[in-house]
Formats: sequence, structure tokens, C-alpha cells
Amino acid sequence: MLHFECDYACGAADVVLRALMDTNNEQHCGYSEDEICGRARKLILEKCDAPDSHVHFVVGGTQANLMVIAAMLRPFEGVLCAETGHINVHETGAIEATGHKVLPLPQKNGKICAAQVREAYEKHIADSSFEHIVRPGMVYVSHPTELGTLYTRQELQELSDTCHELGLPLFVDGARLGYGLAAMPEVDLPFLAKVCDAFYIGGTKVGLLFGEAIVLKSDDIHRYFRYHIKQRGGMLAKGRLLGVQFEAILKNDDYVNLSRTANQYAQEIKQAFVNHGCELFSDTAANQVFPIVPVSVCEKLGEKYAFTEWEKLDSERIAARFVTNVTTKREEVDALLSDIEKAFA
Amino acid sequence: MLHFECDYACGAADVVLRALMDTNNEQHCGYSEDEICGRARKLILEKCDAPDSHVHFVVGGTQANLMVIAAMLRPFEGVLCAETGHINVHETGAIEATGHKVLPLPQKNGKICAAQVREAYEKHIADSSFEHIVRPGMVYVSHPTELGTLYTRQELQELSDTCHELGLPLFVDGARLGYGLAAMPEVDLPFLAKVCDAFYIGGTKVGLLFGEAIVLKSDDIHRYFRYHIKQRGGMLAKGRLLGVQFEAILKNDDYVNLSRTANQYAQEIKQAFVNHGCELFSDTAANQVFPIVPVSVCEKLGEKYAFTEWEKLDSERIAARFVTNVTTKREEVDALLSDIEKAFA
Amino acid sequence: MLHFECDYACGAADVVLRALMDTNNEQHCGYSEDEICGRARKLILEKCDAPDSHVHFVVGGTQANLMVIAAMLRPFEGVLCAETGHINVHETGAIEATGHKVLPLPQKNGKICAAQVREAYEKHIADSSFEHIVRPGMVYVSHPTELGTLYTRQELQELSDTCHELGLPLFVDGARLGYGLAAMPEVDLPFLAKVCDAFYIGGTKVGLLFGEAIVLKSDDIHRYFRYHIKQRGGMLAKGRLLGVQFEAILKNDDYVNLSRTANQYAQEIKQAFVNHGCELFSDTAANQVFPIVPVSVCEKLGEKYAFTEWEKLDSERIAARFVTNVTTKREEVDALLSDIEKAFA
Amino acid sequence: MLHFECDYACGAADVVLRALMDTNNEQHCGYSEDEICGRARKLILEKCDAPDSHVHFVVGGTQANLMVIAAMLRPFEGVLCAETGHINVHETGAIEATGHKVLPLPQKNGKICAAQVREAYEKHIADSSFEHIVRPGMVYVSHPTELGTLYTRQELQELSDTCHELGLPLFVDGARLGYGLAAMPEVDLPFLAKVCDAFYIGGTKVGLLFGEAIVLKSDDIHRYFRYHIKQRGGMLAKGRLLGVQFEAILKNDDYVNLSRTANQYAQEIKQAFVNHGCELFSDTAANQVFPIVPVSVCEKLGEKYAFTEWEKLDSERIAARFVTNVTTKREEVDALLSDIEKAFA
Repeated sequence: MLHFECDYACGAADVVLRALMDTNNEQHCGYSEDEICGRARKLILEKCDAPDSHVHFVVGGTQANLMVIAAMLRPFEGVLCAETGHINVHETGAIEATGHKVLPLPQKNGKICAAQVREAYEKHIADSSFEHIVRPGMVYVSHPTELGTLYTRQELQELSDTCHELGLPLFVDGARLGYGLAAMPEVDLPFLAKVCDAFYIGGTKVGLLFGEAIVLKSDDIHRYFRYHIKQRGGMLAKGRLLGVQFEAILKNDDYVNLSRTANQYAQEIKQAFVNHGCELFSDTAANQVFPIVPVSVCEKLGEKYAFTEWEKLDSERIAARFVTNVTTKREEVDALLSDIEKAFA
Repeated sequence: MLHFECDYACGAADVVLRALMDTNNEQHCGYSEDEICGRARKLILEKCDAPDSHVHFVVGGTQANLMVIAAMLRPFEGVLCAETGHINVHETGAIEATGHKVLPLPQKNGKICAAQVREAYEKHIADSSFEHIVRPGMVYVSHPTELGTLYTRQELQELSDTCHELGLPLFVDGARLGYGLAAMPEVDLPFLAKVCDAFYIGGTKVGLLFGEAIVLKSDDIHRYFRYHIKQRGGMLAKGRLLGVQFEAILKNDDYVNLSRTANQYAQEIKQAFVNHGCELFSDTAANQVFPIVPVSVCEKLGEKYAFTEWEKLDSERIAARFVTNVTTKREEVDALLSDIEKAFA
Repeated sequence: MLHFECDYACGAADVVLRALMDTNNEQHCGYSEDEICGRARKLILEKCDAPDSHVHFVVGGTQANLMVIAAMLRPFEGVLCAETGHINVHETGAIEATGHKVLPLPQKNGKICAAQVREAYEKHIADSSFEHIVRPGMVYVSHPTELGTLYTRQELQELSDTCHELGLPLFVDGARLGYGLAAMPEVDLPFLAKVCDAFYIGGTKVGLLFGEAIVLKSDDIHRYFRYHIKQRGGMLAKGRLLGVQFEAILKNDDYVNLSRTANQYAQEIKQAFVNHGCELFSDTAANQVFPIVPVSVCEKLGEKYAFTEWEKLDSERIAARFVTNVTTKREEVDALLSDIEKAFA
Repeated sequence: MLHFECDYACGAADVVLRALMDTNNEQHCGYSEDEICGRARKLILEKCDAPDSHVHFVVGGTQANLMVIAAMLRPFEGVLCAETGHINVHETGAIEATGHKVLPLPQKNGKICAAQVREAYEKHIADSSFEHIVRPGMVYVSHPTELGTLYTRQELQELSDTCHELGLPLFVDGARLGYGLAAMPEVDLPFLAKVCDAFYIGGTKVGLLFGEAIVLKSDDIHRYFRYHIKQRGGMLAKGRLLGVQFEAILKNDDYVNLSRTANQYAQEIKQAFVNHGCELFSDTAANQVFPIVPVSVCEKLGEKYAFTEWEKLDSERIAARFVTNVTTKREEVDALLSDIEKAFA
């Protein structure tokens, strides 16, 4: 079975695994206070061109989301996000478990826009019962989104401008950020570091065994953030593992370069379906593709390939999701492409 | 600098690292639902002689503690533990962040006893204002304890009997369980699986890169436990990493065998201090030793060795903690033993 | 200014105030453990024909909602409700502050139906990522709803049947229950006590100074419910005040009888608008009416009357809400009716 | 049975009840936004000589405590208090239910001192694992304390100075403040408003049916405090009831004057026991007295009087608590005094 159902069915990228092996016999103090983590933080801030920002490492994306959001909101505040946002639908209420309401907004291609944020905020302020209603306290978007799409530089700039005018921190979930950086270079790390109050550079889905690097702009949030990490169970004892992995994948730009190849593979898979007349449930440029596939083709492919049945549209068509990642091999893609041809034959 | 300040300054045990390398190119479905995790779960239950129990893997100890406790308590219930218990003093209020009060009891050698549990429970029931007071809802102990000591089989049996008579689940934090199993064989896995409602087999401090294996007795707690894991941010995407590591260290009994050597090293270190007339802050048989050391000796050793200043007793004496682990090398111990001699010379 | 904007701009109904005066010099033990509360509980269970159920008094509706829901759900569960449900929109995230997600369903006339509950439940169970999604754990409806409408006996029976088939407790928010009982006698207290796992008899909006009487079916939820009340700050020290008020309004059926008059007044107000060609934003039979009123009329009426601008529909029309209550006087209604005529003249 | 076991077995003081009757037929907007509440707030700030502070009304003391504390702390912070503090022992974990740990300090006569606060704070800062430990974030004291004792002006000044030097808000629980003001005039409202960041003027135990008036110094905490009140279920719909009662008892200084009489009665009761050789469990000047009474005397008195068995000291002696309140009558005290004589005869 070849796995295209997600970007975490694999191990680590070679460069990451090698770094883990090479440093395994070293001794370092715990909890990411070691020098390797120090170097990795410095490297990230350099790549972000944000010397005054701060980096914290955690193990996974749900952790990153709940810690940043719980650190930024006051008890009566909620977080605005797309109705399809990961925090709204796929984290078992992790945000609510910290006491905060997720405030979903209608999405378009998995995205929300600045005007929606303004409308939600102003509606709250204008309501005579405003104190009886959860206050919008920040904004969460994913880049790439849960539908594989990307915000343009302009869209993010407008979100950022509106958020800051209204006093709402902007937080970007970058669980798949590598694929986004590769697919849309105009949204690069320095730009994200400038327009966001917090974002994270996803590692788990981009070649690490695990790990997310949170970049924080606020000195005050940073100052106490390690308390949050520990309290929420996210403080890795052998914290150097996070530094080792991020340094390994970032130092020679493998993070973006390997992602670019994965995107290319995904686009080839997408094109194979399109060539057979398939429509797209969501048209994407990064590592997730969503062809609408006849049930019969799904059944044939399902014998050898794992992929996601995103949504059953009707008795004959399934919106499928195929995902590549930085460890996907040329021959795996070729096998799939070949079997797509056969399935439609 | 050689690190004896904790048991997580190192990488993985060789057998664990090798297994990670050997399986890195495999593809497996995510979230610990793969076959390797399946095998590791089976292996653990066999070693526990508990075919009806259940195993869940999480990344770290604070996660394990907060998830088990939040899953077992009702909102108005608290958890009884030693005042020195990790959940009471070193987890930044992780339990309280899930809404539950930690109910500390006076400790003796880091331990609490059955009579204290009974007294606390009965005091609550007898109080005419009982509904105004947090209800004791379960019991947490660590084995080995935070002071490096061990519960005897009889002590645990009595705790278990009392807990079950009173309807209080018993939960054992086994973050350092390997060292405990090696140092006190009468408390073995089948015994723990029998007397506890939940316990975990600590991996992070016993040779894994990270990971704890929670063993649950209750079918009902088990049935929904993965919801808790996800909600609290503990669901590792590349979950097979947990299965790989636990299988590697458990299958040939390295978990206990390597721990035994680490204990032996720690006892040699302890004896070196005792030979120079040092008293012990806490007398232990496992991998943590607590000699009371003259400040001048601490200063000399501190130039080459990292260890913990557990408590400054007065201007001349420090209760120090030296910790070994399954990756500690003979030559590292020898170097320390030699330098202890020199420091006292 | 005459107040028709809500049902809590008034004091207590005469019969309630008198009872408070008559008992003021009595001494009773605190926290609703006195004999008056005992009598009131007994009276309520008799009226509910539910000798095996249990009654708890709290001060307000948000308290009742958050306590019942937090007592009934496990940490990873959420509560299904209409998107317009009070807990979803007008309680500042009180449910989320206890750690639980509110799971909104599309509403029709402020109501949800059994089929929607089943669909939400089955969609969750069928999702392969179900453990990553908040589990529907109970159902919340309001009767009367936030739009002033009423569930029929059959609708509630179907909701109840579906809930119990699926293992979901059904909870009815009866903040305005008196008006509902008067307007739709087929949904009476014995019926509610039979089909609901929990509901409350609202006092604050039906003639009491404050107070809600929660009726619980489950022995287990009841057994520990006072812990919840205390923990959430809802345990009234002079608890007899709740018993005094509920006994006073219930013993001679004033609760329903006075509500019937209030409903009648509200219907007269509704009819006055309809007579002038106004449509209804929501057509109701109880004490809240929602005529769609020309802005010019709203402005004239606004000089002497307080009412709610529920929604501004366009530049010329406002969906207004006029509310009566058990203390509303004939002459107040007559004044309003007369001024409606003038405003349209 | 005459009730001396607490100060909430009674109804309202006459002046309060009369005001409730006199205003019952008035109509006012809800949620304490009416003009009576406005007047009451103004009156309180005048009596506090604190024109820049802010007043919020809530129904009960546990509500006041949990709202103020949850509003003031960040998620990883806890509240320092005496081990006997109400929030630590008699609120069913209400503070923990908002996510915060209560950090108990050893008490002396129910009190803590500035040096203890400094020590706890500095110990935290100095700990190398400080981020693994709950951060002291504010200080809670009760005045009068749970043992009926009073802080002197100097003690409070020192607490305040230390708190503010360390950046810790100081919060005074004034559930029985009237009795404290009467017994120790040097700690008056203007002084409290000056040295505290928040305190409340207790109404429930001092002649109101219910209600506490929270005085906040911080503009920022005030600005959003009504969101907290609503979220925690403390927003009274008929909010004018709180304004009516506080205005009634405060405007002619009945709050202090009636308390003074109650204190006098309590002291007479205390003296009666002392005259018969009883020692005091806690020596107090306000409305709670704690004589150590022979079991036989307790049994005789228990036939006609309710009082609290605070602690059973041994088989022959009980530390009893007798409590008076602003509605206690001369003849009730005389009856008790007379029966004390008989019980010892």
C-alpha cells in the first residue's frame, strides 16, 4: 500500500534523520534550552528577517494552536476563523477545552477575508448586548488552508491591516507552511513575520519526525510562553530534538526545496485526473489535490493506494484528496500515475 | 560537561535509535493506528499479563498525567497526591488547567500511604459542608517517586485495596518506571497492572527519544481516551514512532536490563559520597541519588559535571541530585567517581 | 417609559413579594437545605408527576445552563443546539468556559428537530476521524425558544425518542416556561418531566425576583449536583429565598395563570401591528411578539416605550420585539395599543 | 431553634426589605444598568473616597472571588492565600475550575503577612525550573478572616506595599466586611480602596437578601468585567435588586451601625463562655466567636440553638463557632446568654 492520504504516513526526510543520528550521543540540557535549539532559533529569525521576534518549539500542531490562542486571549474572548479551520473541526474542541469559543466565519476556498473580520468585529461592538456575546479577540487562518489553497500576499496584508486596526492579533497556522512557501513565493517568511503576530513553521508534515516552530512577535507573550508550553504538556524533555531537526531542514533551504518537489508531484497527480475529465473539489497549487473521481476509479485505486475520501458527493462521484510530502519518491508518483491511467481505461 | 542533572540530557538508547532508522522509510497510517503500534501494545499487555487492559501512547509525562486525571475525574473532584508529587509542584498547574484541584497530602520519603488516603476521604465525607469542598476523586503516586524512592509491593497493595474500597481509582506515574522495575523486582508490570487503574511505562527518561505508554484497566475510560489525547494536543501524527520505540526497548527486556545498569552506576556514585562521610537527603535504590555535599565539593565538581542543587540546606551543605540513565557510559561514571575523590582530597 | 423590551424590567409578582415579606423574619438553615425549599421541591415534583426526579434551585438561567451541561458532558463532548440557542449566542461563551464546545444546528423558527440530531450524531460516528472531532454528547433546546416559538408535544416526543435511542440526554431551557405552559397546554410539566433528562422552570422571567428550578431525572447527576452548584458560584447562601418564591407562585397555579394573561396581552399587541399590515418576523403564541414595523412607527413609539430592535431588516423596516410578563398591567397594554394606533395614523 | 451557626440563616435587614417593597412596582432596564444601580455605585465610590475606581454587583461571594481572580490572572498564574482561605477550602475548587491553582501559605490567626508573600514570590523567581511551577500572580486575603480575625491597618499596608512592589494585585474578600469596619475603624473603606486592587463589600452576610459590591481599581479590568460576570453566570437579570439593597443599607450608614450591634452581641456571647473558664480557639472582635466548649455544654445548648462545631478538639472539648448578624435581636442574645448560664450550672 502506498500512502497518499496524508503527509505524515512517512518517517523523516533523510537530512533530518541523519542529524538525529549524528547528535544522538551528545548530551544537552533539557527542555529546548540547549545550544542546538539556540542555533535553530537564530537561524529561523534570520530567515524571517525578524531579529526582534521569538521562537518556541513544540511537538505538534494542535499544541501550537491551543497554546498560542490560550496565551493571547482573555477569558471572555474567542478566535475568529474559517468554518473549515482546523481548530474548528479537527481538534476535538482543544480550543474550547482552554475555555475559549471558536467563532467560525463562512469560508471561500478555505479562506476568510479582511472584510469578514471587520464585519464580525463591528457587529459585536454595535450590539447593545455585546457583553452577553463572546468578544472576537484574535484571528486564525491556515496557510496553506485545510482545502489546500493559499492566501495571496495581498489577502494576508489586508487581513493584517484590518486585524491591527481593530486590535486583533493575527495567527497563521503553518502546519504545511513549506508547501505554501514553495508554491507561492510572494508569501515568504519575512513577510509572514511582518504581518502576523504569531505563526508557526510546520515540521511534522514537512519532513520532521515531529515539531513545529512558533514565531512570536510580542515580547510580552514570549516572556511567559514557556509556562504555557509546560502547563499544556508541550514541553519536550529532550528538547534538543526539535532544534536538531529544524536546523537540519532549514539550513540548506531543504524545507522549501523539498516541498517544491512534493508540490510538483501533487500537481502531476492532479493533472492526471483532470486529463480524464475530472473536476476539482478545490483547485490548489501545493501538496494537497482534490480531484472529483468516479467511484469505480476510487475502488480500483484503493486496492494499492491509500487516499482520503474527502466527501461523497453523490452515488457516482467522490471528492478525493491525494497528498504528497517531502519524502515522496518519484517512483511512487509514477506508479500512481500509471495506475490512474489504467483505472480510467 | 558531563550531564548527571537529569535523565533526559541524552539521546536514545542504541536499540531505540536503530529501530527508528530501520523503519524510517516505511509508510504507516497516522495517529498510532498502525501495525507497529499494534504490536507494541500487544507486547506491553503480554508483559503486564493483562490481556483485558488497554495501551495508549503519548509523547510526554505531563501529557500522560493531565489526560488520565482529566479523563477519570468529574468536574468537582480532585486528585490526592504527595505534596512532593510532580503534578503538584512541577507541571505549572497542568491539572488545575483542566479544572481540577490537586489535593496534597504530607509525604514521607516522597510517599503517601493507604491510611492517609482513607483519612482524607473520610474527613471529606464526614464534613457537614462536604459539598462546599473538593471531593477526593482518585489517587496519584509516582514510582519511583520524585525523591527517588520506591513503594514496596505491600505499600502499593494497601493503597490499591483502600482506593478500591473507597471507589477511588489509583494512578501510578511511571515516568522512571524502568529504574523502579530494576531496583525492586517485587513491583513488576503484572503487579502494577493488577493493582492500578492506570499507570504508565515511562519512555522519555528510560532510553526513548520521547514517549510514555499508558496502561488503562477501565474499558470505559479506554473507549474514549483517544478523544482526550487529541483534545489535549497529545495525538502524535507520526504515531508509529511511539510504537517503534517501545517495541524496540521492550522486546528483549532492555527496558529493565539497561535500567539495572543505570541504577548500579547511580549507587556507585552514592557510595562514593557516603564513603566521604556524606549523609543522604533521600536514600534510594534506583537511578537518582541525593547525597548531602559540602559546598566546596559542589563547586569543584560543578566545573566538569552538571548535577542538580536540590536544596541548599545551609551555608555549607547542599542536597545534590545525581541522575544516571540507560545511556550513561561506564567511562562517564568512572570519570565522576575519580573526580569525587579529588574533590574531597 | 414603559418597558416592553424584556420580561425582567419589573419586580416580583405580588404573590411572590408577599411571601418574601411574610417569611423575612424567619430563620432557616442556609444553602436551600431548609424546610421551605423542601416543600417547594415536593410541590414541583407533584406538579411534574415525577416522584423519582429531583429539584435543585439556582439563581439564574445562564447558571442553570452551564451547570447542567457541565455536569452531563464528558470533557470531549459538546452540546447540540439551535444556532439561535441562548447558550450559543447570548451567554458570553459560558459553556465553552467550562471546556465544552457548543455544536450549533440550523434552526427553523428557532427550533431544531429529531432528524437533525440524528444526522449530526451519525455523521460523527461515521467519520473516520471521529476522535478528532467533538463528540455530540447531549441536546439543548429552549421552550419557548429565543424566537418566542414553541415545540409541539410531538416534536419534543420525537426529539426525546431520538436522543434516548442515541444515548444523548435532552435538556430543555425553560427560562420562559410559564408562558409556554400557558400557550401550549399539551406540553405540560408531567410531559416535560417524562421526555427530558433535565429541564428548568424559569422564575426570573416569570414573576420571581430571581430563580430557576432545575428538574433532574438522573439519580447520579442529582447525587453530586450540589457540588457543581457550589463550584460554579450558584449556591445561594440564603437559599430559602428560592423555595419561598417558587412555593408562592406555584401553589395556586399562578405560574401558569398569570402567564396566560401575559400571553394574552402580547397577542393583543401583535394583532395591533398585524391590523396595520405588519408582517411577523416570527409568529408566536406566548409572551414575545416580533412584528416587522416601519422605522417611522418605531421612532414614535420609542418616545414612550422601551422595546427591542431585534434586527434592522432594511432602511425602512425593523423587526421589533415586544415582551410582556406576569406583572404587566392592563393599563400599560392599553396605553401601548392606543399609541400604536396613533403611530400609524 | 435559634440560629447562631452562620450569618445567613435570616432574611434581610428591615431597611433593605422596605426598599425592595417600595421599588417593586418600578420598571428598570436589566442587568444592573439602571439608575438605582448607578446611584448605588456612586454612593459606594463616595464612601470609598475613590472617584476613579469602579463598582460591579454580583449575587454571591464565590462568584465575586472566582470572577475577580479569573479576570486578574494569566493562565499559568495562581493566587496566594492563607491555607484557611475560603477559596482554598470552601468553594469546591471554584478557582481551579477556572484553570488556576490556589497557592496556600501557612496561616496565623487566619492571616498571612507581607513577608510570606515576598518569600513565595522570590522562591519562584529564584527556582531554575520556574517555568515548570505555577507563577504567583496575585494575593487573596479575607477581612474579617475565616477565623473571625482582622488585619490591622499596618498589616494591610505592608501587604499592599509588598504586592505592588512585586507586581501582584491584592484582593480582599469582604464577605463580612461590615463587621470588620465596625470592629476595626482604622481599616475603613477609603483605606481599602487605596491599598487593594480589588475588594468587595459583602451584602449577603450583612443584611441583604444577597449581593456583593466589587470595587475595582484597574480601568482595564473594569472595562471588560461585565463580560466575565455574564460568562460565569453572575449577571442578575433584575439587576436593580442589587442597587436597591446596597443603596438602602449604605445611605444612612446602617451597614456599619447595624454591624456594630451584631459585633457587640457576639462579644457578649464570647464573654459568657470566657466567664465560665472557656478558652478561645480564635480570639476575635467581630461577629464570629470561637469558644472552646465542653461537650456536655454543647449538647445542652444544641437543643435550642444552632451553632457550628468548628473542630472537635478531643473527647471533651469542641471548638464551637457562634455567629451574629445585623438582624440578630437583643432577646435572642439574651436567651442564649441565659441558657449558657444554665448549661454550665
